[in-house]
Amino acid sequence: MRSYLFECIDCRKHYAPDEVEYVCPECAREQQPMQPLKGLLRCIYDYESIARQFDADLIAKREELGFDRWMELLPLESADALPPLITAATPLRPAPKLGDLLGLEELWLKDDTGLPTGSFKDRASALVVACAYERDRETVATASTGNAATALAGQCASMEMESVIFVPESAPMAKLTQIAVYGGKLIPVRGSYDDCFELSLAACERFGWYNRNTAYNPFTVEGKKTAALEIWEQLEFETPDWVIVPTGDGVILAGIEKGFSDLAALGLIERVPRLAAVQAAGCAPIVDAVASGSTTIIPEMKPETVADSIRVGVPRAGHWALQALASTNGVAVAVDDEAILEAIALIGRSSGVFAEPAAAASIAGAQKLAQDGIIAPDEVVVALITGNGLKDVPAAAKAVSFPKPIEATIEGVQDFIDQSAK
Amino acid sequence: MRSYLFECIDCRKHYAPDEVEYVCPECAREQQPMQPLKGLLRCIYDYESIARQFDADLIAKREELGFDRWMELLPLESADALPPLITAATPLRPAPKLGDLLGLEELWLKDDTGLPTGSFKDRASALVVACAYERDRETVATASTGNAATALAGQCASMEMESVIFVPESAPMAKLTQIAVYGGKLIPVRGSYDDCFELSLAACERFGWYNRNTAYNPFTVEGKKTAALEIWEQLEFETPDWVIVPTGDGVILAGIEKGFSDLAALGLIERVPRLAAVQAAGCAPIVDAVASGSTTIIPEMKPETVADSIRVGVPRAGHWALQALASTNGVAVAVDDEAILEAIALIGRSSGVFAEPAAAASIAGAQKLAQDGIIAPDEVVVALITGNGLKDVPAAAKAVSFPKPIEATIEGVQDFIDQSAK
Repeated sequence: MRSYLFECIDCRKHYAPDEVEYVCPECAREQQPMQPLKGLLRCIYDYESIARQFDADLIAKREELGFDRWMELLPLESADALPPLITAATPLRPAPKLGDLLGLEELWLKDDTGLPTGSFKDRASALVVACAYERDRETVATASTGNAATALAGQCASMEMESVIFVPESAPMAKLTQIAVYGGKLIPVRGSYDDCFELSLAACERFGWYNRNTAYNPFTVEGKKTAALEIWEQLEFETPDWVIVPTGDGVILAGIEKGFSDLAALGLIERVPRLAAVQAAGCAPIVDAVASGSTTIIPEMKPETVADSIRVGVPRAGHWALQALASTNGVAVAVDDEAILEAIALIGRSSGVFAEPAAAASIAGAQKLAQDGIIAPDEVVVALITGNGLKDVPAAAKAVSFPKPIEATIEGVQDFIDQSAK
Repeated sequence: MRSYLFECIDCRKHYAPDEVEYVCPECAREQQPMQPLKGLLRCIYDYESIARQFDADLIAKREELGFDRWMELLPLESADALPPLITAATPLRPAPKLGDLLGLEELWLKDDTGLPTGSFKDRASALVVACAYERDRETVATASTGNAATALAGQCASMEMESVIFVPESAPMAKLTQIAVYGGKLIPVRGSYDDCFELSLAACERFGWYNRNTAYNPFTVEGKKTAALEIWEQLEFETPDWVIVPTGDGVILAGIEKGFSDLAALGLIERVPRLAAVQAAGCAPIVDAVASGSTTIIPEMKPETVADSIRVGVPRAGHWALQALASTNGVAVAVDDEAILEAIALIGRSSGVFAEPAAAASIAGAQKLAQDGIIAPDEVVVALITGNGLKDVPAAAKAVSFPKPIEATIEGVQDFIDQSAK
């Protein structure tokens, strides 16, 4: 196990795992502040050798339920390093009623709302924590206020490891609570997210902590790719036509592309699915870049959207995201906050899944792409539901209405029923 | 399948499934308002016949992951009636670090925080919805503001069925939001929870809706017992010494007792575990009844606790709860709000599980019972974690502290580390 190389996604140079830790040192030299990261590293495995002993039959027969099901495709020495908090694949739920509403005949929800800390980010954090464990690093640090930091704190807690979370002092208490409950060491910083990002790098250097900053740590993409591997197995080893990905920093998009690319490199699938990146209209730098045909991403300096998990003005994995869209014949689409909120209620009442705003964006995006004829009605579509609606109940409250009280009599109920039937 | 009888837990009279719907008509005649329910019905199966073809080996070999794994012990015609929203057993997590802190050598957390609507109540609601489906009832109603109603709305949504939820007009918007997202028809009532309870019965009668009121509908207990069946399998078909149960209306306690009793009736286990009911100090009518050796429960007319999911002044399944404690040589213990809040942080930082206050009560109770020597250090203890902490973030915020901001410099970080090491 753990036989892989790093490949820089910008200059394509290869590095042995012990040669570099996070990014391509050459490309990183050109890094500008407040810009997508240069020199992100992609793990490449010895696909030929893996292919000789790895196939769908082997996977189907395995008793392991979680990440350890995919050990050949993970950058780990041993499954023993994996945190116990991730225990199984998340459900891939058929969504026939929601599909009807959207005009899609085969729609699936990859439902990550039940992951231990309530979001897709558990995937990346679990793998990064395992990698830290194998490197004898007892503390993992990151700059984030959101699901990534929460997931890191939770996964570290389950391994009796320490997490250090750099957050802007303005971060709302509600978001910090879950991190604090997991015992994450919160360090509020007088400054912006970018100040936190820089400070986390300096602190990791000084104190020997392992850094989990999203995209910057190459294993964040590897952790996220597990969703693609699960989708493939759950569709009985078929590839969907589309995967719809709520997109902020671009790492989930990169992860989904990477998972299917690995399967293609092993000869297990003939094509990767088309990816659809969905951003919020008030924060859509990747959509803008795709629309202009540019490979340069112009950061959104005033990002505004109700979907806080994709409110990312500077998409750190922006270059990889653009490559993933190009190589999969993908599309990028922006949806406004109204459509996002409507999608929360649409998903909830048609399937019983409660999505946070960023997760609902995925369905708002699918709806738009179906309406515009970009997705055909008979294509197989998987939408990622990346976070639990309980993460942001106030946003969900805007998506629904509450009726007026009735008198406590059966006639009161009758009137209520008659009224609501109108 | 579906060969069972009802047995009244008070008069022990038997009924065929089509003879009665909810409670024993004779005992129910003595029902007083604002008191535990009379005449609750227990499903009894043809254990002899089931025992001939049902054992641990059979279960271990089954491919089904969820409720359908236990069809012989469920009151259903067919697994087709089960909502798709419940897809697998919830994790039984070893908690060695938390056990150390409590002085327990083998502590497990039955972690229901990842269930689709975020609480244990999905178990009862899923089964009730399946039973409604088999009875061609398209609408299921309940009186509740909490997890039970949320679970009903979510499970109905997944089956394209209707839910009707009677709530007191004073119910907080945040709690109603999740129900509304699932498309539950909220009917706010000018009155108390008890008014809602009565009104829900009358409305079900008038409109032909199926009633899911907890305890009142006998299948709520049957749904909840699945947790016991899962624990038995997950402990490799061994019985724990203790199961710790956060207790409000008493139905979870009844369900856990029922699950293990079913296994005992099949000859698969030799003893049922001892049950420990944990209530909040400000709302402990069951603890009080046990302490006084009485079989009468005196309702708590001013229930006060941060743990809203067990803030139940009138425990509707109180009689069954007392019977369950007596028959399992169980105990009942009250814990104060401070201990409950502390337990939230204790569980979070030692295991990465985020519990709502009622769920954390389970660990506060285990701690007290271990300190008092009632649970011995070497006993096998399973604590139910019945609800997701995201259900009540403001309560969790009281359980943790937040440090002051630092300057965005490495020296600032150094000072912070030095300070927190003191």
